[in-house]
Amino acid sequence: MPSSPEAHPLWAVVMAGGSGTRFWPLSRARRPKQLLPFAGGRSLLAATVERLAPLVAPHQTLVVTTAVTEEATRRELPQLPAANVLAEPAGRDTAPCVGWAAWRLARRTPSAVMLVVPADHLVPDGAALRRTLAAAAATATARGGLVAIALRPSRPETGFGYLELGEAAGAAGGMRVCRIARFVEKPDRRRAEEFLAAGNFRWNSGMFAWTAAAICEAIRTHLPELADGLDRLVADADTVGEAEALRRHYPRLPRISIDFGVMERAANVWAVEAELAWSDIGSWLALADLLPPSPAGATMGDVTALDSDGCVLVSDGPMLGVVGAHDLVVVATADAVLVVPKDQTQRVKELVERLREVGRDELL
Amino acid sequence: MPSSPEAHPLWAVVMAGGSGTRFWPLSRARRPKQLLPFAGGRSLLAATVERLAPLVAPHQTLVVTTAVTEEATRRELPQLPAANVLAEPAGRDTAPCVGWAAWRLARRTPSAVMLVVPADHLVPDGAALRRTLAAAAATATARGGLVAIALRPSRPETGFGYLELGEAAGAAGGMRVCRIARFVEKPDRRRAEEFLAAGNFRWNSGMFAWTAAAICEAIRTHLPELADGLDRLVADADTVGEAEALRRHYPRLPRISIDFGVMERAANVWAVEAELAWSDIGSWLALADLLPPSPAGATMGDVTALDSDGCVLVSDGPMLGVVGAHDLVVVATADAVLVVPKDQTQRVKELVERLREVGRDELL
Repeated sequence: MPSSPEAHPLWAVVMAGGSGTRFWPLSRARRPKQLLPFAGGRSLLAATVERLAPLVAPHQTLVVTTAVTEEATRRELPQLPAANVLAEPAGRDTAPCVGWAAWRLARRTPSAVMLVVPADHLVPDGAALRRTLAAAAATATARGGLVAIALRPSRPETGFGYLELGEAAGAAGGMRVCRIARFVEKPDRRRAEEFLAAGNFRWNSGMFAWTAAAICEAIRTHLPELADGLDRLVADADTVGEAEALRRHYPRLPRISIDFGVMERAANVWAVEAELAWSDIGSWLALADLLPPSPAGATMGDVTALDSDGCVLVSDGPMLGVVGAHDLVVVATADAVLVVPKDQTQRVKELVERLREVGRDELL
Repeated sequence: MPSSPEAHPLWAVVMAGGSGTRFWPLSRARRPKQLLPFAGGRSLLAATVERLAPLVAPHQTLVVTTAVTEEATRRELPQLPAANVLAEPAGRDTAPCVGWAAWRLARRTPSAVMLVVPADHLVPDGAALRRTLAAAAATATARGGLVAIALRPSRPETGFGYLELGEAAGAAGGMRVCRIARFVEKPDRRRAEEFLAAGNFRWNSGMFAWTAAAICEAIRTHLPELADGLDRLVADADTVGEAEALRRHYPRLPRISIDFGVMERAANVWAVEAELAWSDIGSWLALADLLPPSPAGATMGDVTALDSDGCVLVSDGPMLGVVGAHDLVVVATADAVLVVPKDQTQRVKELVERLREVGRDELL
């Protein structure tokens, strides 16, 4: 727990602005990954907020989403005060998202601790997650810097950013705390293998803790253009109203991630080493690992498979019948069906691009 | 043309009682193959009746279907008098179907010539078909026997019955007429190859011509139980009404095909040798041969395929997107999707059986 709860009220900032096509056709512009029922039938977003609730009450939970998913996000989170759902006019990556929440918090309570949590990850053990976040919050207030939650890599994953641990700096809540020597963007396979072998590299979980004051200061130092934009946005919100101020300023904020824009450049950065079962569910194959195994591979929804194996078979509506298939991904929805071999799923974006080119926006 | 049109009015009997699961999930109990839009977007049934129309007017065209498809059949054929659609309470194979139509016709006009035509075959050249049927009708009246339309085999097909040509017997309409030495049930591959090599074997097209009197007599000789049943049915129709008579008698008629029950046993059987492009569209692969070729193989409906080949991709509703697939059959409908390798399509019936076992009747 934070060293002084009264002085450092705990807020959660859930980043729910994700879009992307990796789960097309199950995911759509209006139903991105965080809204998919990947948490045992519930949406990842709802599961994320509920997982945090014993640590951070709904009235201290902000959810940042985009205009196109605002209504769906509110529907998923009826327990949140309406004002706690912040809708970006358009996604500008994570630095503006975090910055906007930080600027709002800092006006009233600069000492507030922000736990920044992606809405679209899966952490089965909620209690372990809360212990980890509490340790990160305690570290953020004790050290006064920026804290990342670091995960021990289990494979040479090329889809994540890494952080290299530096000097050890004690512990929090039973978890090791280290300085972060450097952040590394998604590596290629060979480097990822080196990181795994080296032992002092961790996955960047995308979860962070810092005080509102600390992140505001870091943004002002490393992303001054973003800080200026947020200043103008907040100032105008008092005069022309927040919706108009957002419409004016948000689309012009620099599009940059908090990792690249701030964490990699800041000096006072710390890692809390979590032992946490965790998945960012970055692909159909990652989802398959989380589904109960079946002879056909992994199935979700109304699926009947005969003599099939190694498949990922998902239906969001139609009965999906598969005979004699191997290593296929098949995803059936009411208005679109995808069939692709398991080793070519990264090419689905080409298909989506083709649909965009021919104006099939109703499917995107 | 028949030798004496007045003495031998020409009737068509379209057999539209087919069911079957080979086109599941596109075909269902209530929408069997003859109702599928396999004739360039129109149903095979509608195309069959329209193809016959210049030779046999709608008021002399009978369509025999089953109760479950009666309404859909009537909707497809608005040009037919209501009384010309005959609905079997349940399908009993082709001998009762042909017999029922023959018994009705024979009561008024025993000399009428019946052209018996399956509703679910595709004959692209309607004029050639009509010339062939006219030649068969002329042969039926001239010879007084049972006439089958024989097709020269183009491959050692194991899915059709064959007939062995006997003694030549002149010509009709420019087509060769022979006695039929014998009928052969669907052969295995080796025999089919022998038939192809022998040169005097033909595919049994399932199209026949005979006078009502001739087929009634043949049924009475070779299927006396069927003849007795039809006698009772027709007699009762005069007293209790046709619906009640059908309900009483039809389900107890012997279940047997006209080929096996009559043609194979009758002596006075003739073949008219047609030169006719023809398909019984017996499988997804046969359908594929009839669709315009695309790089992905054959596609029908809303399909987008990238880097795929040898596939049969069919949609009856959802957008079907396929990437990197080879030799797959994928069929997408609003409530069911099928994925099966091209060389295992015969196993779809196992899938359908599984669905039946678990009570998914809404999908069958």
